[in-house]
Amino acid sequence: MVDQTLLPGEVRFIELRTVDEVIDAIKRLAVRGAPAIGVAGALGVALAAVLADETGAGRDGVREAAARIRAARPTAVNLMWGVDRVLARLGEGTAAVVATAVAMIEQDIEANRALSGRGADWLQARLGSPLAIFTHCNAGGLACVEWGTALGIVRALHERGGVSEVFAGETRPLLQGARLTAFELDAMGITHRVVVDGAGPSVIARGMVDAVIVGADRIAANGDVANKIGTYPLALAAGRAGIPFVVAAPESTIDLSTATGDLITIEERDPSEVLTIAGACVAPRGSGAYNPAFDVTPADLVTAIVTEERVIEP
Amino acid sequence: MVDQTLLPGEVRFIELRTVDEVIDAIKRLAVRGAPAIGVAGALGVALAAVLADETGAGRDGVREAAARIRAARPTAVNLMWGVDRVLARLGEGTAAVVATAVAMIEQDIEANRALSGRGADWLQARLGSPLAIFTHCNAGGLACVEWGTALGIVRALHERGGVSEVFAGETRPLLQGARLTAFELDAMGITHRVVVDGAGPSVIARGMVDAVIVGADRIAANGDVANKIGTYPLALAAGRAGIPFVVAAPESTIDLSTATGDLITIEERDPSEVLTIAGACVAPRGSGAYNPAFDVTPADLVTAIVTEERVIEP
Repeated sequence: MVDQTLLPGEVRFIELRTVDEVIDAIKRLAVRGAPAIGVAGALGVALAAVLADETGAGRDGVREAAARIRAARPTAVNLMWGVDRVLARLGEGTAAVVATAVAMIEQDIEANRALSGRGADWLQARLGSPLAIFTHCNAGGLACVEWGTALGIVRALHERGGVSEVFAGETRPLLQGARLTAFELDAMGITHRVVVDGAGPSVIARGMVDAVIVGADRIAANGDVANKIGTYPLALAAGRAGIPFVVAAPESTIDLSTATGDLITIEERDPSEVLTIAGACVAPRGSGAYNPAFDVTPADLVTAIVTEERVIEP
Repeated sequence: MVDQTLLPGEVRFIELRTVDEVIDAIKRLAVRGAPAIGVAGALGVALAAVLADETGAGRDGVREAAARIRAARPTAVNLMWGVDRVLARLGEGTAAVVATAVAMIEQDIEANRALSGRGADWLQARLGSPLAIFTHCNAGGLACVEWGTALGIVRALHERGGVSEVFAGETRPLLQGARLTAFELDAMGITHRVVVDGAGPSVIARGMVDAVIVGADRIAANGDVANKIGTYPLALAAGRAGIPFVVAAPESTIDLSTATGDLITIEERDPSEVLTIAGACVAPRGSGAYNPAFDVTPADLVTAIVTEERVIEP
């Protein structure tokens, strides 16, 4: 996989040959994005099954490895979904486990393309064309196997000549918007501007965009959406401005076992991601930081959830 | 004055001996904060008057210098107010000009202390004590002559034992929250945590703070408030959470000649502030940025404006 921590400066591919390497890649965000870590988790379980055959660790060894992969990050439900889906085939043998995991690669691409076309149709039917879009973090090809969800809709619109400009929130602390989304937009030749996260809501208030499109890490049964920190303010602003706030995600992101957003575990990452930039301390040594990786947007602020199967409106 | 661009790493004092040096210090944010640049502008005009006596540039030379200082930054009305107030004394001679400018130093401190006590009273009467407060950018002693406005209220509350914790938004792109507000809070011994700007609204939604207090760069006649980019999302979140959104500013920040926030000129700064961090490019070379320095919070989201003379509620 591409090591996403090095983008956009360097495109380096890494090969993961142990379960610990898979877990480390997920934790340090070498691979990130809910759909991508879902497939990475599935392939990690397949790797564990192959290695267990070599070492004689047996099915218990695979189950233990799967539990550790499943716990690598707590918020995106796709990771648990990917692990569980492959683990369910363990009784059929290693070949079935590997085939299930590998099939998920193609299935993710197909799901992305399906939801992207549906989302583009939905937006064009309501708003016409061309559209200026605001997005946050990265829900593009890098966040999936390829193609993308939120940015996949942008890509589908762009192929129809339907995008005038994209605004990308930089997405502090790890700058996935500036580093990854801008990288994908640049590669696709789509006009775009990066803004600091504090600027998104006023860009929306000033009428500079027609819609907000974001991905999701977990969608609760009531429609509350957990996504990258900084998503909620965009939903608030879109609601006040009266423009659509669209969530693009595969069905595997919907978690009917979690009733509401309040019950979603929000990952808290290291304060150093906030307090240091490029290795330099930006705040006094005595200062602390609070670093939640996600926020929850209440369902009433979500105009539509677009998946590979349907558009869900309130 | 302290060169604020070097904080918190280095406390360096600089002396400004020409009008161009004053303008440069204001433009590059060596001095920033609406009240501080108001006083700096006034002292700049006094400096111009003294220099004009030495060079024989005359009153036209002072007026020309004042016009250039006045235009150094477009959004904070305090700069225009400070310049105009001193310039109005030009007919009375240089001594009157200098005395007026110097008097504004003490007046700023007195105004800060008065509004801070009033704001602390207002909050404690409504919310009790101790309080967790969210603030953005820096409206502390560094943004004024000393003491502060929004952070001045926090300081007044703290002296009464009325602060449990302060959350400071880091305030990209130039990190005045992490660099300056955390520096002041650390010096005052107030428990605090820095958060990325995208996290502020969900910190508010999760009930972690009792009130939001911010400064202002210009308040229009209808009560709309221009303040550092990233303020508007906090007002949206406070409104939804039902907690007070308090604006603390001296009377000189109120601009009755500007009817509504839509008419306030919003300074756009260089895209490089967004696209490079610590000298390194964070986005692809082909990416642009949009870098507005301020946003406008509509009056209906403002619970109270606290000045040295009054508390203005809707």
